[in-house]
Amino acid sequence: MAHEKYNELLQALHECMAACNHCYDACLQEEDMQMMANCIRLDRECADICGYLEQAIARNSAFVGQLAKVCAEICEACGQECQKHTHEHCQRCAQACLNCSEACKRVA
Amino acid sequence: MAHEKYNELLQALHECMAACNHCYDACLQEEDMQMMANCIRLDRECADICGYLEQAIARNSAFVGQLAKVCAEICEACGQECQKHTHEHCQRCAQACLNCSEACKRVA
Amino acid sequence: MAHEKYNELLQALHECMAACNHCYDACLQEEDMQMMANCIRLDRECADICGYLEQAIARNSAFVGQLAKVCAEICEACGQECQKHTHEHCQRCAQACLNCSEACKRVA
Amino acid sequence: MAHEKYNELLQALHECMAACNHCYDACLQEEDMQMMANCIRLDRECADICGYLEQAIARNSAFVGQLAKVCAEICEACGQECQKHTHEHCQRCAQACLNCSEACKRVA
Repeated sequence: MAHEKYNELLQALHECMAACNHCYDACLQEEDMQMMANCIRLDRECADICGYLEQAIARNSAFVGQLAKVCAEICEACGQECQKHTHEHCQRCAQACLNCSEACKRVA
Repeated sequence: MAHEKYNELLQALHECMAACNHCYDACLQEEDMQMMANCIRLDRECADICGYLEQAIARNSAFVGQLAKVCAEICEACGQECQKHTHEHCQRCAQACLNCSEACKRVA
Repeated sequence: MAHEKYNELLQALHECMAACNHCYDACLQEEDMQMMANCIRLDRECADICGYLEQAIARNSAFVGQLAKVCAEICEACGQECQKHTHEHCQRCAQACLNCSEACKRVA
Repeated sequence: MAHEKYNELLQALHECMAACNHCYDACLQEEDMQMMANCIRLDRECADICGYLEQAIARNSAFVGQLAKVCAEICEACGQECQKHTHEHCQRCAQACLNCSEACKRVA
């Protein structure tokens, strides 16, 4: 398939999308939800762009490089926000985001 | 994670999304492209709804059942169209679609 | 264009998508954010499906009826949640959601 | 609303999304469909990113500028491809794409 050279990135995007959506769902159940507003917001931004880039790679888009550049930036912002919070879902999400950001940069 | 009970469906959705996008890309390079118009169309429909449902499951949506019902129908339509064509990408896609349709029905 | 018969629905979907995203953004800035968790969640669900259905109509999808049925249900759930809250953005969003739900039902 | 300053861009994105989806649908019904392969492909790319950016603006995303930059590039590529074809849907789409590309550049 056309997207075989992107296998590592596809894996990272998929894990990041899942982790961000899980973190979003979990943040909306936290007692200190007020403190999680930016995390909720960035989780959605990041899940959306990762899902978008997955689809773009899979359809052999001519714009993978440019989209990966934006995705790297959004993943990094989300990872940095998540790192600030001690909830396990945030820490896991931070790791998935920063890993995905690096994978995006290698392609961008 | 909240979506653990959907692991089988998530796997089927992901494979179906990838197969549909690959089939779409390959159909647009076929010599008999005219014959593939419905296939191209349904590949996009199916890739889009599978990607959508993946995101919905991952964010613990309250509407997974209803979305899975629509997804099952779209996957089935795409699978039936792809089955008509002998291209390897169509045959593979048909299998992924029909498999995903069954997985959706078990959840719907 | 193929989607001309859907003009009323397209308008309702677009307003609903905008109102839900605005309500989502505003809820994440409220002091009583904890109380808005379901509203935030449903705003995202509703904005996503409305945007999805807009695209489906625009590409002359064969599945508009089935998607409109799900969309009607999600819009209704979001409208009912928003109605509970006195914030102006919630009240406006409720109206857009219930209006869109009715428009979806006429097509479903 | 937070997105009021983007009114011109939102209008351009919406028209471009609709025109690209219509052109995609119409290209798949043309007799010279083989010649339209790139147009079909770019119509989908462009409709998807325009819809995505609309949602991002509506939710007050922090990444509107970066996304607008990518969107400008995709709109331009789609507009240039559509310009090559004499079908009315292609010519209309070209205009919507190039207009949207300019609106994106003013924000990026």
